[in-house]
Amino acid sequence: MVGDRINEREILKLAAAANGTLPQSILIPPGDDMALVQLPSSQVLVAVDQVVAGRHFTAETPLDLVARKAIARNVSDVAAMAAIPVATLASVTLPHSLGAQGARELLESVRKYAAQFGCPLIGGDTSVHHDPQGPLTLSVTILASPRADGIVVTRHGAKIGDRLIVSGPLGGSFAEDGLGHHLTFTPRVAEAQGLADTLANELHAMIDISDGLGLDTARIIDASAAHSGFAMQARLSGGHIPCNRGHVLRHALSDGEDHELLAAIDGRAVVPAGWTDIGTIIERQVGDARSVLVEIADELEDATNLGWLH
Amino acid sequence: MVGDRINEREILKLAAAANGTLPQSILIPPGDDMALVQLPSSQVLVAVDQVVAGRHFTAETPLDLVARKAIARNVSDVAAMAAIPVATLASVTLPHSLGAQGARELLESVRKYAAQFGCPLIGGDTSVHHDPQGPLTLSVTILASPRADGIVVTRHGAKIGDRLIVSGPLGGSFAEDGLGHHLTFTPRVAEAQGLADTLANELHAMIDISDGLGLDTARIIDASAAHSGFAMQARLSGGHIPCNRGHVLRHALSDGEDHELLAAIDGRAVVPAGWTDIGTIIERQVGDARSVLVEIADELEDATNLGWLH
Repeated sequence: MVGDRINEREILKLAAAANGTLPQSILIPPGDDMALVQLPSSQVLVAVDQVVAGRHFTAETPLDLVARKAIARNVSDVAAMAAIPVATLASVTLPHSLGAQGARELLESVRKYAAQFGCPLIGGDTSVHHDPQGPLTLSVTILASPRADGIVVTRHGAKIGDRLIVSGPLGGSFAEDGLGHHLTFTPRVAEAQGLADTLANELHAMIDISDGLGLDTARIIDASAAHSGFAMQARLSGGHIPCNRGHVLRHALSDGEDHELLAAIDGRAVVPAGWTDIGTIIERQVGDARSVLVEIADELEDATNLGWLH
Repeated sequence: MVGDRINEREILKLAAAANGTLPQSILIPPGDDMALVQLPSSQVLVAVDQVVAGRHFTAETPLDLVARKAIARNVSDVAAMAAIPVATLASVTLPHSLGAQGARELLESVRKYAAQFGCPLIGGDTSVHHDPQGPLTLSVTILASPRADGIVVTRHGAKIGDRLIVSGPLGGSFAEDGLGHHLTFTPRVAEAQGLADTLANELHAMIDISDGLGLDTARIIDASAAHSGFAMQARLSGGHIPCNRGHVLRHALSDGEDHELLAAIDGRAVVPAGWTDIGTIIERQVGDARSVLVEIADELEDATNLGWLH
């Protein structure tokens, strides 16, 4: 909760609260980057993620980049499960001001990026706001397929002794003018596949860093602690966290929208090329409520809530 | 197109325009009630449909019924493919005015109706509008499974000589006070299953009547003509079209949001109990652009565009 708002974490909790009534075909229930559903003889992963004007992008953002962001955020969720994108659907609520030409431009961009990222647009729904002030809302649903070896990487598989690794530099994704990396990032699907190929079952947990390294690390820790019953704590090494050029550690920990991957891998595994070791998972002491600590200049700081909830 | 707006038909056309580039795993591309996707050893159907305040419901509509409508519309798409609901995801953009309590009430209702209609809520995304005037938008994605016998009923399988049948009475769904049948209808999943059980391959095409009997009949005709290469025309018998109490034929033809099913079945098949025979499909004459004609008091009227586009 941020202020008096209800957020994704809460909707997922709410849905998860009813998990007792979910059929056995829901193999991974709400709470991870994607849900996993058992069909008669296959499994399919599915997730939905939206961008809203004024919230996820500024009114000045080119429509082409709005479409790109909506698709790329969803593909990033697929990467986080080490899955393969299959298809997308788009649900758009258009402002009056956009006009039919703007609407077509937006949808053509959605189609283009969906195809480019390997998940063709196969359905959609559009409405025009009745209220002249209604903002552009673009919600994308993505379907994905598990790897052929059946490995699906959740948030909840991390273990005490694991290493934490990231796929790239963090911080400053959302520039002051509203532009920046959050509009142009490449989802780490190939990197995730490479990691799963190399590590197989030594790849314990993964998440895409959408809300900030602190918050997203806490999500792995909390989900894995709940799943395993072992109290855990992440211990990050501030000096090892890769920062984007021009950005300090504080931004890397808090900014969000980087959409790099954070993975927990077996402590005995070799860190693959291209990934950076940023810390370990240790046992959490009784009475310690902190999920993520970061070592900065010989001090331990609580990073559990460092991040940005939309 | 209604005025200068872009509508679902157009977004689907736009997506379909790129069908040449769609992979073979997309078995039913954009343009039907749902898309059908081939996974390694199963098929999954998927669709998305949204409701927007001021467009699909009035500001005075109880949140519980808003949630019900959003779920039921999607389940109705599943019924139209003669498929089985599997799971849903919800994407919500909340107005400031709703508050956290209203948001929770809405989401709890979404969860409740999703469970009730056999498609548990397995994921979601929520945002709060930045603009204080931003209206409530609730977009639902639904996953469905084809029947065990593999029959999936599209819009495009109708043939010359087919009978057209409907599952129930039409008209007046959207009452003047904003309430009405569009908020309380039961999606015809069981009726569709019964029809497919009875008729098997004699069930040629089906659609749910969401935008008006005229328009939705034209969709079956146009899709089937395009698919088969035969010019077709629906000839409806005005006197046989079942009307809801207090509503005249004009409403039954135009109002939309009934969410009864319209099916094209083999002309030699017996019309099953509970369904009403309302017409036939004939060959369309060269130079005749009309897809749907309705016989009213010995006159033939063009009903091709009778309906309501949101």
